[in-house]
Amino acid sequence: MEFQTVKGMRDLLPEDFKLFKRVITVIREIFDNYSYQEVSMPILEPFELLAAKSGEEIKETMYVFEDKAGRKLALRPEMTASVARLYITHFMKAAKKPLRLAYIGPCYRYDNPQYGRYREFRQAGFELLGSSYPEADSEILSICDDLMQRLGFKDFQFKIGHVGILRGILEQEGLGEEIQNKVFSLIDRNKVEEAYQLFKTHKLSDECIEIIKELMKLKGNDIHQLIDQAKSITKPYIAANKALQNLKDILTLYLICGEKEHLFLDLGFARGLEYYTGMIFEIFIPGLSIAVGGGGRYDRLIENFHGRSTPAVGCAPGIDRIVLAMKEKNIIETKSDKYENKIIITCTDEIILPEALKIAKLLRDNNFSTEFDVGRKKLKKLLSYAAEKRIRYVIIVGQSELVKNKVAVKDLSAEQQHEILITDLINFFKERLKDK
Amino acid sequence: MEFQTVKGMRDLLPEDFKLFKRVITVIREIFDNYSYQEVSMPILEPFELLAAKSGEEIKETMYVFEDKAGRKLALRPEMTASVARLYITHFMKAAKKPLRLAYIGPCYRYDNPQYGRYREFRQAGFELLGSSYPEADSEILSICDDLMQRLGFKDFQFKIGHVGILRGILEQEGLGEEIQNKVFSLIDRNKVEEAYQLFKTHKLSDECIEIIKELMKLKGNDIHQLIDQAKSITKPYIAANKALQNLKDILTLYLICGEKEHLFLDLGFARGLEYYTGMIFEIFIPGLSIAVGGGGRYDRLIENFHGRSTPAVGCAPGIDRIVLAMKEKNIIETKSDKYENKIIITCTDEIILPEALKIAKLLRDNNFSTEFDVGRKKLKKLLSYAAEKRIRYVIIVGQSELVKNKVAVKDLSAEQQHEILITDLINFFKERLKDK
Repeated sequence: MEFQTVKGMRDLLPEDFKLFKRVITVIREIFDNYSYQEVSMPILEPFELLAAKSGEEIKETMYVFEDKAGRKLALRPEMTASVARLYITHFMKAAKKPLRLAYIGPCYRYDNPQYGRYREFRQAGFELLGSSYPEADSEILSICDDLMQRLGFKDFQFKIGHVGILRGILEQEGLGEEIQNKVFSLIDRNKVEEAYQLFKTHKLSDECIEIIKELMKLKGNDIHQLIDQAKSITKPYIAANKALQNLKDILTLYLICGEKEHLFLDLGFARGLEYYTGMIFEIFIPGLSIAVGGGGRYDRLIENFHGRSTPAVGCAPGIDRIVLAMKEKNIIETKSDKYENKIIITCTDEIILPEALKIAKLLRDNNFSTEFDVGRKKLKKLLSYAAEKRIRYVIIVGQSELVKNKVAVKDLSAEQQHEILITDLINFFKERLKDK
Repeated sequence: MEFQTVKGMRDLLPEDFKLFKRVITVIREIFDNYSYQEVSMPILEPFELLAAKSGEEIKETMYVFEDKAGRKLALRPEMTASVARLYITHFMKAAKKPLRLAYIGPCYRYDNPQYGRYREFRQAGFELLGSSYPEADSEILSICDDLMQRLGFKDFQFKIGHVGILRGILEQEGLGEEIQNKVFSLIDRNKVEEAYQLFKTHKLSDECIEIIKELMKLKGNDIHQLIDQAKSITKPYIAANKALQNLKDILTLYLICGEKEHLFLDLGFARGLEYYTGMIFEIFIPGLSIAVGGGGRYDRLIENFHGRSTPAVGCAPGIDRIVLAMKEKNIIETKSDKYENKIIITCTDEIILPEALKIAKLLRDNNFSTEFDVGRKKLKKLLSYAAEKRIRYVIIVGQSELVKNKVAVKDLSAEQQHEILITDLINFFKERLKDK
C-alpha cells in the first residue's frame, strides 16, 4: 500500500513546475508594470469571513473545520475576501487611495475533480481599491489582455456582463439584495427558468419579466449597438440605464488600446460570487470549455466587512488553467532534446575529492549550474547518466591532470574533450555559457 | 467588529513581502547552482502520511480534520514526508539516481504563537535522494552555508549531531526503534533526566548509561578531537563508532570549502523528527534563540512508506525566521526615502483620457512601471500623492502639449519639468531608468 495525494490535488513535477514558474514570472512583470504591490494572506481564514458574501456554491464547497480552540476556520476558496480584510486592517486608515494590491497563492474547493477543476489550485489577483471611475475597470481588463498576450495567447475573449443592470431593475421593483443574489446564483448555474419562477413568486409584472428576458438575450461583439439596444429596452429603469452607460464607458476605454475581437458582451451573464456590484467578466480561450480567469467590480464588500465605503474592482487569473491552456494550445516549447547549459563534476579517485569540491564551489560562486557526482559512479556510467539528463559538460578531476593544475572537460553536445587549466575554467565556461 | 487573521497567522504587507521575495530569489539561485529541480506538493496530505514518522510533538500540533468524504487530512507541518511520497509515486521506478529535488511552500503547526514561531510559516527544502556517501551530507551543509552567506549573514553556526551514534548504542543493547524515538523526543525537549530514567526502566547497564552521559557532554568546535574522544568512549559499540566515523568524514569534506567557525558539534543533540538516521543539524545565528533552518539524513523514510530502500539527506531553511533574522541583524537596507524609478500618468481633462491611456500602454510595453491616475485627482493633489509614494516621474497629458505631440514630464527627485515629444518618451526614460 502506497500513500497518494489527496483526491483532486496534484504534485507539480519539475517540467510542470517550470511552466507554472514561467506564468508567475509574467504575472509579476505585470504587477510591476501596472504598479501593483504584492502581498500575502494566510491560506486559513475565519469561516465567517469567507462565507459572508461568497454565494451558495462556494459555501457548499469550502473546506471547513474547527481548530483545537474551537475556531471555525476554512481554507480560502478565493482571495478577494481576504484582501478586503487585509485592506481594512492595515490600509484603510492611512491609505493613499487608490491602492493597488496583488497576490499569488493556492485556493481550495471541495469540487468534483474534472477537466480543469482541481481541489487545490493557484490563483493570482489584482485588486484596485478606491476608484469608481470606468478607467479603473478598464485597467483590470487591460491587465488581463496584456497577461494573455505576453503568455502567447492570441484568440482569447472576455465574456462581459454587468450585474448592476439586473440589480437595478430588481431593486426598482422592490426585490431586495437577498433575492437578487438568489437570482444571480440560479443564472450562474444555468437555471434560468427557476429564476423566472422566482420572479413570479415575488410578483414581478409580466412586462418586467419580458424586459429581463429580452435583455438576457443580448449577446455578441457589436458592443455599442447591443448596449444602446439594452438601454432602450430598459428605459423605465434608471439604475439599470446608468449601469449600461457605465459598461459602455468601461468598454470604450478598454477599446482604445484593446481589440474588439477580444470582447464578447453577454447581458445574461452572472458569476458565482455574491459580492459583485458592477462589471463582471471571465476569460475564455476558443476550444476550452472553462474560463482561465475572471473578475469584476465589488463596491460594497469592504463596507459589508465593517470597513469604510470603498469602491473596488479586480481580477483573478487562474494559474493552473492557464498552464492547462498553454499545453492544449501548444504555446509551450515541447521538451527539447538539446543539452542544457549545466555542468557535472566528478573525480577519478576518492583521494582527490577535496580538489573536485573546490572546483565545484568555484563554479557555483560564479553561478554555473553544477552537479557534484555524489554517487561515486564509474566514468562510463557517469557519462551515460549525464547524457540521459542532457547535462552538457562533464568535468573529470584526475590525478594526472591535477599535477599540471588542469582538469578534463567533456562537451557532450560537441563530443569534444579539452584539458583546461583550473585557473582558466571560469573563462572557459563564461565564453561557452554566455546566455546564462 | 472587524474580521482578523487567524491567531498565529500573518498577512505579509508589501515591504515584508519584498524581503520574502528576496530570500526566495536567493534560494532559487541555489536550487539552480546546485542543480536541484523544483517541485510542488499539495498543502493537504493524508494524516497518516504526515504522522507516520514525524514524532510526538509534531503529531500533537498538526491541523487535522476530515473532509466531506470522511478522509482524515492534515495541513503539512513540514515537507520531507511529502517529498518521500512524491518520490515513490513519480520517480522511484525510473529514477536516475541520485535525484535532487527542491521546493518552497507554507507549512502549518498549531503551536503557541511566540517569538519566531508562527502557525503558518514558509519553508524551502533541498532533498538529495539516492546517495549514502558523506559528500551528499556535506553538500547539504554547503548549501546552507552558501545560502546564509549569499543572504549576507556572517556569524552563523551549524549545531551538528548524529543520531546514528546513540541509535547504535541502544540497538546493540537491544532497545528497539520505538524506545530510541522516545529517547530522542525527550532529549529534544530538554528532558534528559527522563531519558536516563527510561534507560533504567529498560535495564540498561550503569556502564552504558555512563558512556551515554559522557558522550552527550561532548560539544564544541574542535571537531576532530571531539569525535576521536567520542570514538574512544564508545569503543564497545560498533555501529556507534561507524556513525562517528561517518560524521568525521562529512565534516572533513564540509571543511574543504567551509569554515571551522561555522561548526558546533553537539553529541547530545536531537531533533523533533523521528525519521532521522544519521547526521542532523540546525542553523543558528548568534543572539537569536531560534534555529533558522535544519536538516539531516533519513535513510529509512522512503522504505517505511513502502518504497524501495533509498538513502536520503536534506535540509529545510525557514523563510519566515530568516527574514526575522535579517531584520534583527540589520542586514536589510532600511527603507529609504529615495524616489523609486516609477512613473505616474494623468491627464488634465477627461476628453484626452484616451491619449493618456495610449501612452501608459506604450510605457508598459517597454516594461516601465507605470501607474495610471484612476482617481481623476487635481494636479496639485496628484503631485503630493506621487511625492508621498516616492514616484519619481509624473507625466501630465494636457491639451496644449498634445497639439504639439508632446507631454509634460515632471522629475520629482530633480524638481525639473520637461516637455517631451511622445515619440521620444521611451528613449527619455531608457536613458534615465537604465538600472531597471
